[in-house]
Amino acid sequence: MWWINESEIMIVGLGLMGGSYAKGLKRLGFHVSAIDQREESIRYALEKGIIDEGFTGPDPEALARADAVIFALYPGEFLDWIRDYQHLLKSGAMLTDVTGVKSCIVYEVQKMLRKDVEFIAAHPMAGREVYGVENSTETMFRDANYIVVPTVANTEEAIEWCKSLGKILGFGHISTLSPEEHDEMIGFVSQLTHCIAVALMTCSDNAHLVDYTGDSFRDLTRIARINEIIWSELFLRNKGPLLHQMDVFISEMETLRKMLQEEDREGLKEKMRLSTKRRALFDRKG
Amino acid sequence: MWWINESEIMIVGLGLMGGSYAKGLKRLGFHVSAIDQREESIRYALEKGIIDEGFTGPDPEALARADAVIFALYPGEFLDWIRDYQHLLKSGAMLTDVTGVKSCIVYEVQKMLRKDVEFIAAHPMAGREVYGVENSTETMFRDANYIVVPTVANTEEAIEWCKSLGKILGFGHISTLSPEEHDEMIGFVSQLTHCIAVALMTCSDNAHLVDYTGDSFRDLTRIARINEIIWSELFLRNKGPLLHQMDVFISEMETLRKMLQEEDREGLKEKMRLSTKRRALFDRKG
Repeated sequence: MWWINESEIMIVGLGLMGGSYAKGLKRLGFHVSAIDQREESIRYALEKGIIDEGFTGPDPEALARADAVIFALYPGEFLDWIRDYQHLLKSGAMLTDVTGVKSCIVYEVQKMLRKDVEFIAAHPMAGREVYGVENSTETMFRDANYIVVPTVANTEEAIEWCKSLGKILGFGHISTLSPEEHDEMIGFVSQLTHCIAVALMTCSDNAHLVDYTGDSFRDLTRIARINEIIWSELFLRNKGPLLHQMDVFISEMETLRKMLQEEDREGLKEKMRLSTKRRALFDRKG
Repeated sequence: MWWINESEIMIVGLGLMGGSYAKGLKRLGFHVSAIDQREESIRYALEKGIIDEGFTGPDPEALARADAVIFALYPGEFLDWIRDYQHLLKSGAMLTDVTGVKSCIVYEVQKMLRKDVEFIAAHPMAGREVYGVENSTETMFRDANYIVVPTVANTEEAIEWCKSLGKILGFGHISTLSPEEHDEMIGFVSQLTHCIAVALMTCSDNAHLVDYTGDSFRDLTRIARINEIIWSELFLRNKGPLLHQMDVFISEMETLRKMLQEEDREGLKEKMRLSTKRRALFDRKG
C-alpha cells in the first residue's frame, strides 16, 4: 500500500511530532492532510505548505480517502478518537502512532478496532523542549531511534510498512520491540531520566546556585523543563515499569551512599570503573 | 605583584587544567614554568611553546624565582607538596590552586604554610572528559565559573589578585564563596550529578539499551565516564556535604515514587511545574 504520490496520508494531531511527520512526508511527495482542534496550527501549516489539506475536526470525506493515518495525540486522546471516529476510516487503512507508552494503548486499540483496518504501533524517539507545529523539523529524526512495536495481531505487511515509514522519514536506527520490552526500556532511558531531572530541580531551593552551575548540572537538568500534562500521563500509564526502574535506581544510590558513608574507596572506584566502561558503549558512533 | 611581563609564574601539575592555565598565561606575556613528574608532558609543553621552562621535580632555582605558584594537583598531592617543598618558595610568593574541594584543603594548607607566602584558594569550574596537557585549551574557561575561596587568613590584596587571575584567563563569571559554602554548592551541582550519572550506568546491565537511547539518557550520563582516582578522592574529601545532598535527592526520588504509586497526578504535575519554573532560571543567558 506504500506508493509515493499515490497514497494519501492523514495526520491526527498537528503538534511538534505531527508537524515533523507532515514536513517529511510532504517533501517525499505524499498528499498530506491533518486534523487538529487548534485552528492556528492548521492555518500555519497550510500557509507554510506543510500540509495539503487541514481540518479542525474528523472530516469524514478526508478520512474516507486516507490510506494511512498517523496519530500524534496524547495517549488518552488517541483511545477516545479511535472509539468515537473509527467508523470514518477507509477500509484497508493502515494506522500508526507516536505514543511514548505502549502496553496500555496498543492492546486496547487493537481490541476495539474494526477488523478491516490495521493498527501497528510505533515510537519515534525524537523530541525537542519546544512544542507546536511551528517548531516542527525533520532534523530531529536524524540519528534518532524509531521503534516498531508489533503484537501477535499484526501482519508482516504492516510491520514492514511501519519500518519503511521510519526509514523514509530519515530515522537513524529502526528496530522492533514487544510492547512489554518497549515499556521497560522507555521506563529506564526516558522516564527515569526525566524523573531524576525533576527531582534534582525540586529537591532543594537551588536558585542561589545559578551562577555556579557548570555543564554537568545543565546537562542533567536540561529535560527538567517538562510539559506536566503529557509527562504525568506517560508516567502514570507506565506505572509498573517506571516504579521498578525507580526502585532499582534508588537502591543503587543507597549503595553509593553507603560506600561513601563507610569510606569504601575501592568500592566507589569499582563503581566508577564500571560506569566508565558501560558509558563508552553509548558514545555515538561516527 | 601582578605585572604583565614582569611576573614569573610556576605551574605545579601540568595536566589538562595546568596546561590550560599555562597556555592562557603564556599568551598574556608571562614567563611560565611548570613542574610535572610525567616527562612527556614537560617535553610536549616545551615543544609546543606552552611553557618557557619545565622540570620533572621541584626545581629550587625556578621556585626561588616564581612570584606566583599555581597548584593543579590532586588534593592529597597538593598537601604533600606544601609539606615537603614549601621551603623552596620565594618569600612573598602568592599561591593558588584549582582543587575541587575546599574545606578539607584550604585550612590545612594555610595552617602549615610559612608566614611570608600566602595561599588563596580558587576553583575554576571548567573541565573536559579528556585528560592531559595534550588536551588543554583556554576555550574551556569561556562562560565558565571561577570561584575564589578566601578565609579570614587571606589579605584583600590576595583576594583581588586571585580574582584578576580568573579575569585575565577569560572566565565568564567570577565570584567568592567561603570554603563551607563552596563545598555545599559543589556537593550539589557537581558531585551529586556525577553520583547520579554513575548510578544510572551501574544500577542495571543496560548494554542492550544502547540502540534505544535518545538525547536525554546521553545527556544524563555524559559525565558517567569518570576518572575514578580523582573522583573517589573528591567524594571522600567532601563526604559530609555530599552525603547530605545525596540524602536530600534520594528523599525527593522517594516522594516522586510515592506519588506515582498512589497515582497522585496533581502532585506529579505540581513537581513538574516547579521543576520547569526553576530550570528556566538556569538557561544560559545570551
